[in-house]
Amino acid sequence: MGFEKLWNGLRKRSIKGKELVIAIAQDYENKDVLMTAYQDKDALKRTLEAGEMHYYSTSRNSAWKKGESSGNIQTVKEVRRDCDSDALLFLVDQKVAACHEGYRTCFYRDLDGNVLERRVFDPEKVYKEDG
Amino acid sequence: MGFEKLWNGLRKRSIKGKELVIAIAQDYENKDVLMTAYQDKDALKRTLEAGEMHYYSTSRNSAWKKGESSGNIQTVKEVRRDCDSDALLFLVDQKVAACHEGYRTCFYRDLDGNVLERRVFDPEKVYKEDG
Repeated sequence: MGFEKLWNGLRKRSIKGKELVIAIAQDYENKDVLMTAYQDKDALKRTLEAGEMHYYSTSRNSAWKKGESSGNIQTVKEVRRDCDSDALLFLVDQKVAACHEGYRTCFYRDLDGNVLERRVFDPEKVYKEDG
Repeated sequence: MGFEKLWNGLRKRSIKGKELVIAIAQDYENKDVLMTAYQDKDALKRTLEAGEMHYYSTSRNSAWKKGESSGNIQTVKEVRRDCDSDALLFLVDQKVAACHEGYRTCFYRDLDGNVLERRVFDPEKVYKEDG
């Protein structure tokens, strides 16, 4: 299926005036849910072309490549769409860890905020400030 | 943590004028991602009180209990929040199947729409028309 047809067939939500779908990244090996974020048309296109996850940042208003700064990229192994076509599930090979806080998954806390996982890396060493 | 404080601490997205968070339901046994949808304040409150998943329908503009019609409820086993607190991950015990189309998960198709799972039930027999 061509990309335009694919994108047109998805059910987008308008958030801050941008048409977005939900993207969930799941570890293709142990099946942990690593993270979820939104994708705009550009982020999905770049994901499918590169075979590496790209998301859309609603705060920066642009698509971004996961792992661009940290090197912790997500290589796409499989993609699925849900029944009402407003969410995509990506089974990925996660390098090192998904969370910018240094944890393997972004869901490292319970509802009250208690940390349930161990840090895999130190964010201060991985994300260096610019200038 | 009290519910009001919990809700206030979440990062909501405004969709059609409603403040919502993303809710992902994952099978607590085999770790399949079953479905994702939104929750408003009411849906999350009812979920935590009942221990059973409730979501918010952006088309019907109201909270609804998963399994209300079909009986295929999702009993909550564990809840996690993500690093930026705009998404919640619920590990659930799924009765029969999550998808209203009769499949175990809502992610039963690949990106092109090819069906990858077998139907668990016949939707026409489970969801009876009213009147």
